[in-house]
Amino acid sequence: MSITQNLTISISSSSSPFLAPSNFNSRNQLSLNAKSVSICKCVATPREAETAYKTKVSRNENMGKLQAGYLFPEIARRKSAHLLKYPDAKIISLGIGDTTEPIPEVITSALAKKSHALSTLEGYSGYGAEQGEKPLRSAIASTFYPDLGIEDDDIFVSDGAKCDISRLQIVFGSNVKMAVQDPSYPAYVDSSVIMGQTGLYQKDVQKFANIEYMRCNPENGFFPDLSSLSRPDIIFFCSPNNPTGAAATREQLVQLVRFAKDNGSIIVAIETSSFSKYAGFTGVRLGWTVVPKQLLFSDGFPVAKDFNRIVCTCFNGASNISQAGGLACLSPEGLKAMRGVIGFYKENTNIIVDTFDSLGFKVYGGKSAPYVWVHFPGQNSWDVFSEILEKTHVVTTPGSGFGPGGEGFVRVSAFGHRENVLEACRRFKQLYK
Amino acid sequence: MSITQNLTISISSSSSPFLAPSNFNSRNQLSLNAKSVSICKCVATPREAETAYKTKVSRNENMGKLQAGYLFPEIARRKSAHLLKYPDAKIISLGIGDTTEPIPEVITSALAKKSHALSTLEGYSGYGAEQGEKPLRSAIASTFYPDLGIEDDDIFVSDGAKCDISRLQIVFGSNVKMAVQDPSYPAYVDSSVIMGQTGLYQKDVQKFANIEYMRCNPENGFFPDLSSLSRPDIIFFCSPNNPTGAAATREQLVQLVRFAKDNGSIIVAIETSSFSKYAGFTGVRLGWTVVPKQLLFSDGFPVAKDFNRIVCTCFNGASNISQAGGLACLSPEGLKAMRGVIGFYKENTNIIVDTFDSLGFKVYGGKSAPYVWVHFPGQNSWDVFSEILEKTHVVTTPGSGFGPGGEGFVRVSAFGHRENVLEACRRFKQLYK
Repeated sequence: MSITQNLTISISSSSSPFLAPSNFNSRNQLSLNAKSVSICKCVATPREAETAYKTKVSRNENMGKLQAGYLFPEIARRKSAHLLKYPDAKIISLGIGDTTEPIPEVITSALAKKSHALSTLEGYSGYGAEQGEKPLRSAIASTFYPDLGIEDDDIFVSDGAKCDISRLQIVFGSNVKMAVQDPSYPAYVDSSVIMGQTGLYQKDVQKFANIEYMRCNPENGFFPDLSSLSRPDIIFFCSPNNPTGAAATREQLVQLVRFAKDNGSIIVAIETSSFSKYAGFTGVRLGWTVVPKQLLFSDGFPVAKDFNRIVCTCFNGASNISQAGGLACLSPEGLKAMRGVIGFYKENTNIIVDTFDSLGFKVYGGKSAPYVWVHFPGQNSWDVFSEILEKTHVVTTPGSGFGPGGEGFVRVSAFGHRENVLEACRRFKQLYK
Repeated sequence: MSITQNLTISISSSSSPFLAPSNFNSRNQLSLNAKSVSICKCVATPREAETAYKTKVSRNENMGKLQAGYLFPEIARRKSAHLLKYPDAKIISLGIGDTTEPIPEVITSALAKKSHALSTLEGYSGYGAEQGEKPLRSAIASTFYPDLGIEDDDIFVSDGAKCDISRLQIVFGSNVKMAVQDPSYPAYVDSSVIMGQTGLYQKDVQKFANIEYMRCNPENGFFPDLSSLSRPDIIFFCSPNNPTGAAATREQLVQLVRFAKDNGSIIVAIETSSFSKYAGFTGVRLGWTVVPKQLLFSDGFPVAKDFNRIVCTCFNGASNISQAGGLACLSPEGLKAMRGVIGFYKENTNIIVDTFDSLGFKVYGGKSAPYVWVHFPGQNSWDVFSEILEKTHVVTTPGSGFGPGGEGFVRVSAFGHRENVLEACRRFKQLYK
C-alpha cells in the first residue's frame, strides 16, 4: 500500500483500552472486535530502514536552542565508549548522583504489601488523586514542615523533583525571566530554554540570553552577589547546592528573601523535593512539591491553583505502590532506617573529602550534601573528567556541565558501595600522588 | 522576623539529598550538619492564615485561557457535593474510566518480587534509563508491533499516556496548529492551550481559536469530514475513540493517512498507550509512546530526538516496580490474565448497552471500547448528568466535557464491579421506564 508505506500508524490512544495496540487483540481470543483490529493492523506496513517521512511541521525553535546532550546521558555515552575501548576495565561510577545501597526492608515490605493488595478486591485502587494520597500528603506536611503553617493540601506528591521542575516551568510559561545559581543542576536551565523563556545560547560566555546566572564560587562563599542582578521573576535556589554541596547560612537566606520581596519575585516559596536520596527511591520515583496557597501572581491569582491545574492535566499522580513506600519511609521505623542509609553515604563522603584533601586539592561541599566539589584551577573540567576516566576508570561529573561557573571543578559523588569508594580513592591517590 | 513573615522558604532541591526538608534532619540524630539545618528552619516562620504574598510575576496568559476545571476533577467535585446532600446515598460511579477489578496475581507477584528485591544488594537498582528498561521496551515492541519495523528504541516507556501527551506538546511547542476529534479526551485540547498553540476560548462556538475541531457524530459515522479541514500540523486521532467508543475502519484510516501525507502533518505516526485499562494499572502508572526514528520535522530533524530530550529533561523514567509489573503483563500468563479482565469489562459493557437499548435510546460505542455513548437529542449534557446523579445516584460523564461535539450525549463507563453495574442499570430502568 504505497500511501502508507512511510507511515507507521498513529492511533493516539490514552484511553482506547481495548484496541489501540493492534496486535495484542488480534492474538486475543476474547478480542472485542476482531474486525477493527485487523483494520488497525493493516494500515501500518513494514518500513524500509532507509525511509524517512519528512513532514511540513516546523521544529520547535526552543528545542533547537538547547546545547549538546543533557549532561548525564552525555556522561553515560562517554562511559559506554570507554568500556568499548577497555572492555576489561572495572569502571567505578561516582558520576551521576545515583544511590547504590538497598532500600531498608521496613520500606520495601510496604511496597510489596501494597503490590499484593492490588490483587485483592479490598486492596485494589485505581486512579488516585493527581495531587497524591491524603495520608502521604499529611505525613509529609507533619514530618518536614511542622509549625510552619504548611497545610496538607499545600503538598503535591509527584514522581520526582526533576519532573516537578518542568511542571513548574509549564505553569510559569515563556514570559518570565529566571535566575539560577551558576553552577547548578542542569534541569533548571534546560527546562527554561524549552519553555521559551530564554534567548539563544551565547557561546562566548556559555550562557543563554535572558537568564540571570548567579555565580557561586569559593570567592563569594558560594552565595551570589545579589546587588549585581537585574530583577528576575523566578529564582531557583538550591541549598545545599548541587553540585557544589554548599549550604546557605541563615544570614544569606535572609538576604535572598529580602531580595525576592523587594523585586516581587517567586523565590520559590515553592519547595521541590524527593525521596530519591533519603530512601534510595531513585528508581521507585517519589517526590513532592510545596506550593503555599498564599503565593499569588501579580494579578492576584494563586500560583497553587495553576500548579494544580498542570498536575491534573499533565500528570496522573505517582504510582500508588511508590506512595505506599513513601508512607512507610515516614513511619518511626522508616525514618530510623533512612537515617542509617544517610549515615553510610556520609561516611563515603568523608573518605572522598579526606582523599582529595591529602592530595593537596581544594575541596568544597561534602558536609551538607554527598557531593564533593574538587577544584582544578585553570583546567578544563571535561579534560579533567576524561583524564580521570582514562587513567583510573572512575566516572565523575565535569563541573562545566552545571554551567560556566562550574569550569575548573569536578564533582565526585559519594553514592557507591564502600569497597568501590575505597578503590576509587586508591586510584585517585595513584594518579595524583 | 518581619521580612520573612509572608514567605515560606524556598529551597528548591531536587538534589539536596541530605538537608533540604529542614525538619527531617533537625530531628535526626545522625544529622549531617545540624547547624545548617537550624538555619534553614528559622527562615520560615508560621504564616498567618490571611496573609498572602502577591508577587510581581505575571500569570502565564495561556493558563488564563483554560476553561472551568479539568473535566474529571469537576465531576469529582459534583459527586462530593451530591454526597453532602444525600449522605446515605449509595453512589455508583460509571463516570471517569477507572478500573475496579483487582490486578491478576501473576502480575502483582512480579510487582511484589521487585519490591522485595530492592532491599537486597543484588536486586537494588537506582535511576533507570529515562526511556525505560530494555527488556520491557523489547517486550512491548515484539508483543504489540511485530513485523511493523518498530525497533525497541522507538519505544519510550512512560508513567502513562496523559503524561506523554503533555510531553509531546512540549516537544511541538507553541507554533503548531493541532486538529482533534470533537468530542475527544480533554487532555489534547487543554495541553495545546497550555503550550500556547491556541487563541482565546470562543464562547459562542465553545471552541478555542486555532484548533481544528474534527466533528465526529452519528451522521458521519464518527469519522470527520477531512475535506473541510484547513491544514493542521499535528493530528491527534484516537481510535477507538474516547468518549464515543467508535473505531475507525480501514478505509477511514487510509483516508486519514493520505490527508496527513498531503499536508505534511504528523498524525501521530506516534502512538501513545498505557497499561491502565489492560492490566488495571491506572494507579500503578505505566504506559508507552512509539516515536519512529523515520519521522522528521520540516528541517529534517528527527522528532524522536527531540522527544528523547524532553523525556530526559522533564522525566526520570517510570517506577522500576511498575516496569517489572509491565514485563509480567507481557508474559504468556500475564497476557492470558489480562484477557480475562478485559472479557469481564466487555460483559459489563454489553449489560449497559442492552439496558439503554431496551429503554429506546440510541447507543453508540461499547464494541471496541468500554464506553457507552448514549444520545439524548436536544438536551444539555450537564443537565442530563445532573438528573441522572440526582435521581439515581449514578455518576456518568457529560458529553460536552469532551468538546462541543459531545453536547447531547452522556458517556457511561463500563468499569465497575458487576453488582454495581447491574444495580446502576436497574436504576436507569426505573428512571427512564
